[in-house]
Amino acid sequence: MTSPAPTVLVFLDPAFENGRIADSSQPQLMATDLGATRGDGVFESLLAVQGRPRKVQAHLNRLGSSAAALDLALPEQDAWRKAIDTAINEFRNVHPAPTPEEDEVVVKLIVTRGVEGAASPTCWVQASPSPAGSRRQRETGIDVVLLDRGFDTEAGERAPWLLLGAKTLSYAVNMAALRYAHKQGADDAIFTSTDGRVLEGPTSTVLLAHLETVDDGDGSVRTVRRLITPQHDSGILPGTSQGALFAAAKAAGWELGYGPLVPQDLFDADAVWLISSIRLIAPVNHINGKEIGTPAVRKQLTAELNELFAGIE
Amino acid sequence: MTSPAPTVLVFLDPAFENGRIADSSQPQLMATDLGATRGDGVFESLLAVQGRPRKVQAHLNRLGSSAAALDLALPEQDAWRKAIDTAINEFRNVHPAPTPEEDEVVVKLIVTRGVEGAASPTCWVQASPSPAGSRRQRETGIDVVLLDRGFDTEAGERAPWLLLGAKTLSYAVNMAALRYAHKQGADDAIFTSTDGRVLEGPTSTVLLAHLETVDDGDGSVRTVRRLITPQHDSGILPGTSQGALFAAAKAAGWELGYGPLVPQDLFDADAVWLISSIRLIAPVNHINGKEIGTPAVRKQLTAELNELFAGIE
Repeated sequence: MTSPAPTVLVFLDPAFENGRIADSSQPQLMATDLGATRGDGVFESLLAVQGRPRKVQAHLNRLGSSAAALDLALPEQDAWRKAIDTAINEFRNVHPAPTPEEDEVVVKLIVTRGVEGAASPTCWVQASPSPAGSRRQRETGIDVVLLDRGFDTEAGERAPWLLLGAKTLSYAVNMAALRYAHKQGADDAIFTSTDGRVLEGPTSTVLLAHLETVDDGDGSVRTVRRLITPQHDSGILPGTSQGALFAAAKAAGWELGYGPLVPQDLFDADAVWLISSIRLIAPVNHINGKEIGTPAVRKQLTAELNELFAGIE
Repeated sequence: MTSPAPTVLVFLDPAFENGRIADSSQPQLMATDLGATRGDGVFESLLAVQGRPRKVQAHLNRLGSSAAALDLALPEQDAWRKAIDTAINEFRNVHPAPTPEEDEVVVKLIVTRGVEGAASPTCWVQASPSPAGSRRQRETGIDVVLLDRGFDTEAGERAPWLLLGAKTLSYAVNMAALRYAHKQGADDAIFTSTDGRVLEGPTSTVLLAHLETVDDGDGSVRTVRRLITPQHDSGILPGTSQGALFAAAKAAGWELGYGPLVPQDLFDADAVWLISSIRLIAPVNHINGKEIGTPAVRKQLTAELNELFAGIE
């Protein structure tokens, strides 16, 4: 058994303005909590770099829409912000990073429906170290397999009880898809819909880049760079990292595009990434064993996007 | 806030042959348990009537197949049996039923992947009172709406990572479907597939009965009774109650049938039921507002099935 990662827990509790720090080495959850017995709740994961949590507003907004999809009433965003700060400060005090480069804290916001009959949800913030594997994959890139998600792209709009746009605690399928990918020798997966569209990764958003050489007619030639992601109304989670990166890329002169995308679009791309709040921008080397683009282009475009992304608050 | 139902918790623990009784008024789960943060685990619910747990072997077998689908290694069945007995005995000692008719205990078997990096899953048995609402619905019957499950009937076989035949802790969609049904004024739901088949309830199996009058040609006329359920390979959970009832019904001279079923089959049936281990046999009065059969036939057939079902071990 590997020993559990150092963790700080801060429960949202009206009696504690900045949140209530709880001993993470002891049980803190009721065994009858509907989060544990029914996966009935929602969550967010975000990264704090050198003490500063990234994209807090975007994560709180998405936590709010997820909760609304599940009819869960959340505490005020201000209470979350204070608990997030408490968790990050406590974590960095107790577990200081050896170098500024390693000063990354994973912050999870978790909401469950509480025990049966509870008047309000159970809410807490969890701070823990950023996994070394995630940091490594940003550098080395990842191999991916395409996996059928079983849904068509209209299921989410047709059947809101499927909770397709909500980030729920019911992640068993996402975890099973990752285990399946690992058994195939891959690092991650990209889900496809039954109507043949590219959807998302089990814990990430899909991005691709197309470079196009344009002759302006006056003898000059320039490269148009286009960043594309699947359209948001296809039953996928709107990516907070994708949203922030798109805004930064647009300001830097990239063209933006929104699917529908089919698998062939991935194979034809100059680069593909899985982007998420903890691992950040992971370049995809192979999909189903086929190389995407070339190492040189992947490397150059990834460096460019990383630079854009580093400037995000 | 309603006060939480009295509950007994018994953790499976190699150091305690009959399971370790834990104080259910105190937190017993780590907040980092993957059951709570990812819905990553499996469960079963069964009923103990007057101290005797029903269909234990069928539930342990299904717990085993669910766990296998999630690559979870379970403790021996004998350890579960002992913990189940401990939980039931403790519950009935601490919370004796006022009458033998009310002596029903809900027993849940829960398995989570444990905290990240744990060598073995977290396993416990929970005993709690049978909900009064469930007992009432056996008598009064229920109204049901049909809800799209988003999958086709072949998704489960095609994509094992969707875990369609496993009873996982990731039940947020099942709970959302029930909330949606309640908002429509219904008591429960029946899921349908995108290829138009009847699947299952969010927490139950669908059964229907057809009565057919057959003229034997010698002047005598008899009624053939047929009990039908959706076929098991359509991505639904094989019902332990349905399985036990079918065996008893066959012995009592019923014909048995397995789908594919379409919604019209439900509307044309002489009776429809949702059957499950806690609520047992709940007759369906209306589906999408349309009455199923007649009150007299529903009542008579339900009484017959209840009698068959009462004999089950």
